[in-house]
Amino acid sequence: MHDIYSKLEELSESGQYPFHMPGHKRNIDSTPLKGAFRCDITEIDDFDNLHEEEGIILEAEERANRLYGAYKTFFSVNGSTAGILAAVSAIVKKNGTILAARGSHKSFYHAAFLRDLNIKYLPNKIDSEYNIPGVYTGEDVEMLLDKSIEAVFITSPTYEGRCSDLEGIAEVCHKRGIPLIVDAAHGAHFGFGKKYKIKGEYNSVPESAVKKGADVVIHSVHKTLPSMTQTALVHVSDRYPIADSVKKYMRIYQSSSPSYILMSSIDLCMKEMEEKGDDFIKTLLDYRNRIDKETEELKNIIIPGTEIIDDPAKVLIADRSGTMTGKQIYGILREEYGLQLEMAGDRIALAILSGWDTTEGIDRLIKAVTEIDSGIEAKRHRETAIDVKEIHEKNLGELPKSVMKLSEAWDSQTKETLLRKACGLISGDFINLYPPGIPLIVPGEQFSEELIEEISGYLEEELNVRGVVFKAEDREYYVKTI
Amino acid sequence: MHDIYSKLEELSESGQYPFHMPGHKRNIDSTPLKGAFRCDITEIDDFDNLHEEEGIILEAEERANRLYGAYKTFFSVNGSTAGILAAVSAIVKKNGTILAARGSHKSFYHAAFLRDLNIKYLPNKIDSEYNIPGVYTGEDVEMLLDKSIEAVFITSPTYEGRCSDLEGIAEVCHKRGIPLIVDAAHGAHFGFGKKYKIKGEYNSVPESAVKKGADVVIHSVHKTLPSMTQTALVHVSDRYPIADSVKKYMRIYQSSSPSYILMSSIDLCMKEMEEKGDDFIKTLLDYRNRIDKETEELKNIIIPGTEIIDDPAKVLIADRSGTMTGKQIYGILREEYGLQLEMAGDRIALAILSGWDTTEGIDRLIKAVTEIDSGIEAKRHRETAIDVKEIHEKNLGELPKSVMKLSEAWDSQTKETLLRKACGLISGDFINLYPPGIPLIVPGEQFSEELIEEISGYLEEELNVRGVVFKAEDREYYVKTI
Repeated sequence: MHDIYSKLEELSESGQYPFHMPGHKRNIDSTPLKGAFRCDITEIDDFDNLHEEEGIILEAEERANRLYGAYKTFFSVNGSTAGILAAVSAIVKKNGTILAARGSHKSFYHAAFLRDLNIKYLPNKIDSEYNIPGVYTGEDVEMLLDKSIEAVFITSPTYEGRCSDLEGIAEVCHKRGIPLIVDAAHGAHFGFGKKYKIKGEYNSVPESAVKKGADVVIHSVHKTLPSMTQTALVHVSDRYPIADSVKKYMRIYQSSSPSYILMSSIDLCMKEMEEKGDDFIKTLLDYRNRIDKETEELKNIIIPGTEIIDDPAKVLIADRSGTMTGKQIYGILREEYGLQLEMAGDRIALAILSGWDTTEGIDRLIKAVTEIDSGIEAKRHRETAIDVKEIHEKNLGELPKSVMKLSEAWDSQTKETLLRKACGLISGDFINLYPPGIPLIVPGEQFSEELIEEISGYLEEELNVRGVVFKAEDREYYVKTI
Repeated sequence: MHDIYSKLEELSESGQYPFHMPGHKRNIDSTPLKGAFRCDITEIDDFDNLHEEEGIILEAEERANRLYGAYKTFFSVNGSTAGILAAVSAIVKKNGTILAARGSHKSFYHAAFLRDLNIKYLPNKIDSEYNIPGVYTGEDVEMLLDKSIEAVFITSPTYEGRCSDLEGIAEVCHKRGIPLIVDAAHGAHFGFGKKYKIKGEYNSVPESAVKKGADVVIHSVHKTLPSMTQTALVHVSDRYPIADSVKKYMRIYQSSSPSYILMSSIDLCMKEMEEKGDDFIKTLLDYRNRIDKETEELKNIIIPGTEIIDDPAKVLIADRSGTMTGKQIYGILREEYGLQLEMAGDRIALAILSGWDTTEGIDRLIKAVTEIDSGIEAKRHRETAIDVKEIHEKNLGELPKSVMKLSEAWDSQTKETLLRKACGLISGDFINLYPPGIPLIVPGEQFSEELIEEISGYLEEELNVRGVVFKAEDREYYVKTI
């Protein structure tokens, strides 16, 4: 059976000469990227068209579709971003209302902006132990559903690998005829492999959102599977007649000249999963269980397991003594051990595993973490432990009052206002705290004294706050207001 | 000086181990795409961020900027599509009015849809000789400017290499304080090289739109320069305070996980142009002048030159006797000569040249075209010449009446209506004719008898009409109406 890559390879071996775009004419031999350049073409005969699939791209999408079991599966060469923009745009009418958690991906907010939506928020849930976003149940959603809500948008798994109760949420939604959109960007590997009889906490990966009743599921195949960055899949169910509309928006939000390199990368990835998916999952589980086993006796470093983290690929590294922050752990691993982790929170450092890791890499991680643990042990008896718990005890508080629609506010002229004088004013921009990557204020919401205090607190502790400008000339913080 | 690619190469050679996305961990050795995979990373330390450039990506954008001379230059990894969506979204207020030609790229229409714009159209200009879109002057624009218009959108060069009078148009716009947006997707190579003292019609490429006073210029660097498909540049002037807003929309319309492979491809391309740009242009000109010289004596095949085609890279191949259509020329070149051209019109076949073509490829093209010419000569005396002129004498007529805003119409529920019974009804979708790639009707416009007749005529002649569905069961044509 033909796949996109083989066809491209055939083409580059054929005597066929290109008098079409792109301009490099596959004649760039002087770069190690040449393997990619040789496959870089445009929509010529026999190579189908991403926006009107009927040939090899359709076959490739169907191959992916078979692996996940949705009604339809579309490729994205503009990431999960295009998938989220398309799903929200397609399902919720202009000026409609959608229910979502505050920490949804920024493309969710961008879709709400583009389509003049009203956003109703699920309650902020943060796990205070590790300062990572929480998850939702059917009950959480049911309590907030009302006649105005046209769709529910859930992020599951979260960045840190926690899963909401999608089955419960889907049931609640469907009882009311409302579609459920799931940003499963971090869950493209879910549903593969099986339940293994192995020693260790993790004996499988969670089930995929597609199988849990979601109506649109967006997967970033590059995050946890071996596909190139910027590639994703969008799966659609046939419960509601939404597939055509989702596809229409996929055409809008993606380049009219989509990259065949990116598309064949998705296809190769799907073939890899088709042939070796089980091995990949088994390897991942073995790596994870080994890390857990060989670090379980550590005195200070803790790697939370199935009690809170559902995805074996997500290795959160924290210091329970509070001596080292997540940033410090991340920094040492990088500078002293040559291990580049994914992210540093204030409490945790996050490492992502996959079946493509090497035993050597896992060895290095275990060794590093063990040595860091001894280091903390030695340090602990000498210095006073920083109470890292202090940082996240400061709850994210109540949501600000929404006074203007997001789309209107973010389109307005803004002026720079001293943060400390912004009380009562309407925000003209997003202010975000990383981690956990949640907007503290969204355009159209009103600054309150409590919020200003909260933001000022984070700034003082030098946490990562975006959307506030520090001006050296007067040493003051400024925000955008309308 | 560092460029993105060298830094990626360094990274892949360093001992640094990846515990971050993407999931392939740069451990895919079994594919010729491996050179690309080894460079495929995400936003880790030292590798900057496309959406908040301050390190190597900013340097790369500045390198590109120096080559074109704009105020700011932004990379796009979602093609010219993202650039056009961003420029139109940033400059025209929601519900505002923009002036453009009918044949603008579909992403222009998509931006108008997303932002609820009103579109005022320049008169339809088609060159009747070759049935390709025409170009505009300052006068054309001036005649239609009124107080409501907030921006002018011009496509120059056209797909076939024709240029509008951008200097004249920019002057007219700026006199009224209106920004000019230029879709120069096909003109990324303009402005390079110099005026050469060479024999032949073409002694330079045209000047770039940036130098002609345009306020936003979008370049598809993959079309005519050696960058990968899906890459583009967006140049912004500082005449009006639009750069921040354009950037904001670039963040919205591009993946939050942009591909470093695509970004380094743009950067490598800019380095190539920096070092060898002159050679590239000189080679291109030599190829073109050689093709023109060696085919000027042909009896039937004509390759229009500087009298109508401004871009030496665009080789239009037509049969002046009318015996062969563009489609037939394209087909023979592909099937019998192994030359894949860019496009087939009813009258012309289009070949795109670049400085990366090989002498061998040019030889093959000249030989093929010469043999086809003899073939036509032999055929002519035997059969009656098809009067291809008939096809394009049918003018594209007056524009349909706009009855509903595009954004409202394209968002409405539609029903399938018999084309022949659609008179007076409002279209719910686009109907396009390729070539020249111009919408015959846009959502919100009304079907007239004349238009229905025109569309029916094209369908009968089996021209490429999109947006009309043929149903085998009753052998009728259907369109979407509101």
